[in-house]
Amino acid sequence: MADLVARRIHAPSLPEAPGATWSNALVIGDEISMSGVTARGADGRAIGGDSLRDQTLAIFQRIETLVRAAGGVRGSIYKLVIYVTDIARKDEVNAARRAFFASAFPCSTLVEVKGLVFPDLLVEVDAFANLRVNLNALAEA
Amino acid sequence: MADLVARRIHAPSLPEAPGATWSNALVIGDEISMSGVTARGADGRAIGGDSLRDQTLAIFQRIETLVRAAGGVRGSIYKLVIYVTDIARKDEVNAARRAFFASAFPCSTLVEVKGLVFPDLLVEVDAFANLRVNLNALAEA
Amino acid sequence: MADLVARRIHAPSLPEAPGATWSNALVIGDEISMSGVTARGADGRAIGGDSLRDQTLAIFQRIETLVRAAGGVRGSIYKLVIYVTDIARKDEVNAARRAFFASAFPCSTLVEVKGLVFPDLLVEVDAFANLRVNLNALAEA
Repeated sequence: MADLVARRIHAPSLPEAPGATWSNALVIGDEISMSGVTARGADGRAIGGDSLRDQTLAIFQRIETLVRAAGGVRGSIYKLVIYVTDIARKDEVNAARRAFFASAFPCSTLVEVKGLVFPDLLVEVDAFANLRVNLNALAEA
Repeated sequence: MADLVARRIHAPSLPEAPGATWSNALVIGDEISMSGVTARGADGRAIGGDSLRDQTLAIFQRIETLVRAAGGVRGSIYKLVIYVTDIARKDEVNAARRAFFASAFPCSTLVEVKGLVFPDLLVEVDAFANLRVNLNALAEA
Repeated sequence: MADLVARRIHAPSLPEAPGATWSNALVIGDEISMSGVTARGADGRAIGGDSLRDQTLAIFQRIETLVRAAGGVRGSIYKLVIYVTDIARKDEVNAARRAFFASAFPCSTLVEVKGLVFPDLLVEVDAFANLRVNLNALAEA
């Protein structure tokens, strides 16, 4: 048991909410495990307002912040599960993925849910990253 | 291929339903993979009735039962994906996480879905655990 | 970082759509990570039509195609997260799992979502596989 160290990740700009009953990010071996990330700001309002693209981009930035706090890079993110409240706006998710990941695209699953934790949230992203992965230096097979 | 043994986990109190087309829990290396867990009882009714908190607690106990059958402990659970049918009741999920995990909180993703496999189920939890992890003995970073 | 190679998987019969902002499948160490798979055909219509069972079977075949392109086998698939648009039809999902996996059943989570990326899609599956796993040669514990 001793040789697989689990670490809690503290990103100063992304503290857990007071009274939170979850951890934002844990490192399990080389794997970075995260809680679902939303664009909810410190003032309780969604960063990006009613733009699904902008909320998604804000979330991607937060995910990268957590991944960097763990010692990884943007390219360490290898999978996304994206929960949106209006699938008809999926082109905004595509636009955000293109703007953020450019060409080193993670795997990505996209479904429409009935609701998220606050009513003005249009999207939540569950991300998976690994410290030993960099999609910008990817072997092709 | 030979050195990563996959094992099916049998918890006597949590058998797969007759005719089940899934495995409740598999160990893949050190990782414990599980099917989504609900509070559906042997009599077909939800343990915890219409309390989302109590259904969630019953589920957490079941997850721990599976994890222990695999050789782990409560602190081996490092991530939860929680599907609820009424996100407005999310405080009940918080209460269950606090009561069960105390302070060694897994990562946790929470979304509202349209429905679960039986109408009286208020919540289903997809859990991730690792035999070499114990969040109660966690390195901080 | 150097010793955990990530590879993008190219299955000739399952190319990413033009302009796609995701990768269909990546291998991270021994783990095969995939995007959510649907039954959407090249003509834009769902393979399997309005049969949830047939759409699910078409998806399972696609997942196996990706897994084989990565070097695995059907039994390498150890977990499914199945998103359906009508949970009342869950027996069709059971029928597909039984027909495809026979007895070496992966873990499986099943929830009803509000919608999927195209209106005629009844199901999307997020699959997890590992090159060093074969559920058809499983240790019991």
